[in-house]
Amino acid sequence: MSERAVVLLSGGLDSATVLAMATAAGHECHCLSFQYGQRHGAELDAARRVAKAMDAASHRIATIDIGAFGGSALTDSSIEVPTDGADHGIPVTYVPARNTVFLSYALGFAEVLEAGSIHIGVNAVDYSGYPDCRPQFIRAFEAMANLATRAGVEGKGVKIETPLIDLPKAEIIRQGMDLGIDYGLTVSCYQLDRDGRACGVCDSCRIRKAGFAEANVDDPTHYLPG
Amino acid sequence: MSERAVVLLSGGLDSATVLAMATAAGHECHCLSFQYGQRHGAELDAARRVAKAMDAASHRIATIDIGAFGGSALTDSSIEVPTDGADHGIPVTYVPARNTVFLSYALGFAEVLEAGSIHIGVNAVDYSGYPDCRPQFIRAFEAMANLATRAGVEGKGVKIETPLIDLPKAEIIRQGMDLGIDYGLTVSCYQLDRDGRACGVCDSCRIRKAGFAEANVDDPTHYLPG
Repeated sequence: MSERAVVLLSGGLDSATVLAMATAAGHECHCLSFQYGQRHGAELDAARRVAKAMDAASHRIATIDIGAFGGSALTDSSIEVPTDGADHGIPVTYVPARNTVFLSYALGFAEVLEAGSIHIGVNAVDYSGYPDCRPQFIRAFEAMANLATRAGVEGKGVKIETPLIDLPKAEIIRQGMDLGIDYGLTVSCYQLDRDGRACGVCDSCRIRKAGFAEANVDDPTHYLPG
Repeated sequence: MSERAVVLLSGGLDSATVLAMATAAGHECHCLSFQYGQRHGAELDAARRVAKAMDAASHRIATIDIGAFGGSALTDSSIEVPTDGADHGIPVTYVPARNTVFLSYALGFAEVLEAGSIHIGVNAVDYSGYPDCRPQFIRAFEAMANLATRAGVEGKGVKIETPLIDLPKAEIIRQGMDLGIDYGLTVSCYQLDRDGRACGVCDSCRIRKAGFAEANVDDPTHYLPG
């Protein structure tokens, strides 16, 4: 029997790759996405397309209130998304405690499913400014998780899998292409327009573009002209 | 200036006591409650009454989807609430990853508020069967939290305060009475009836009743006759 896994799926390039990797490893993948006050719904549409294209065992979208706390350019429209590629300290696109909340939900879901692992596409290379994308955070979360739950106390525990954590974007794309991912299904831009075109200038677009260029792979993203 | 604190407020006896303690310690208290698929709304009504009676600086109720995972008698009406006082292993009233999710939200809220502490009424005496009520869980959460956030990485960090963790119920009640709490505002029962009367037989009612009896204090709870 394949072991069950919870896969955090955002609709972006990284988490689609994580899902492909977990599927290829033989896991029965149960995907979890969040509606958390993102500025646009295109991410969740992308998550649905990706889960379907990869035949996930299930896909659940949990609605959570984290956006209501404010404090991030990704959920608070009074803060501007930076487009100048500047990179000093923790970016304003950081959402307070986001990965902690996401992983906590995944932990509850994993416990009910009796899943042995939670897979998340954090990356410490491109997102070095996000405290909750670092390996030491992931290890601390896993230690906490195994004290928090029945599975940890009575059973085999839960592992937090971060297959992308040390990979440059180009390498993520190369491995994903080898697994047959259609990256045209995914969305990275922090500020898509109404027609689903990426801005091409926010940090997330810049990193994605550079990754495809470096991987020497055609970038299927629809960018705004200019 | 009084330091800001996030206080997790359920509407029960314990968290009301925690709020009174944090207030007495001079904190500016920002309360956080959750709508998470509880069987009844009386808990949240009680939380509102308590926050108001104690002049909290703010009170936010976050709606979260954790109940949708199922797996607990407190959120899943297909599982019966036990009334026989039996106590073997982890109780069915345990909600998967509940305190982890609650604390994660509180962490996000604390970060936005720049609060230095999160106060939670976990108790390892009466709830020894809940993995996420144990001191080792709380310490692991705090360690994780201080790797997860701006405050942990750039600032003074956040403390998880559990003033009740080692106190027997009678002692909690005694200290709360000294702080002037009206426990008639609080609700503990897992299965209140429509008129707000407590069943008197679920684990939570049993523990509450015994606490008032042992503290030698009048129990203001409205119990069902019988």
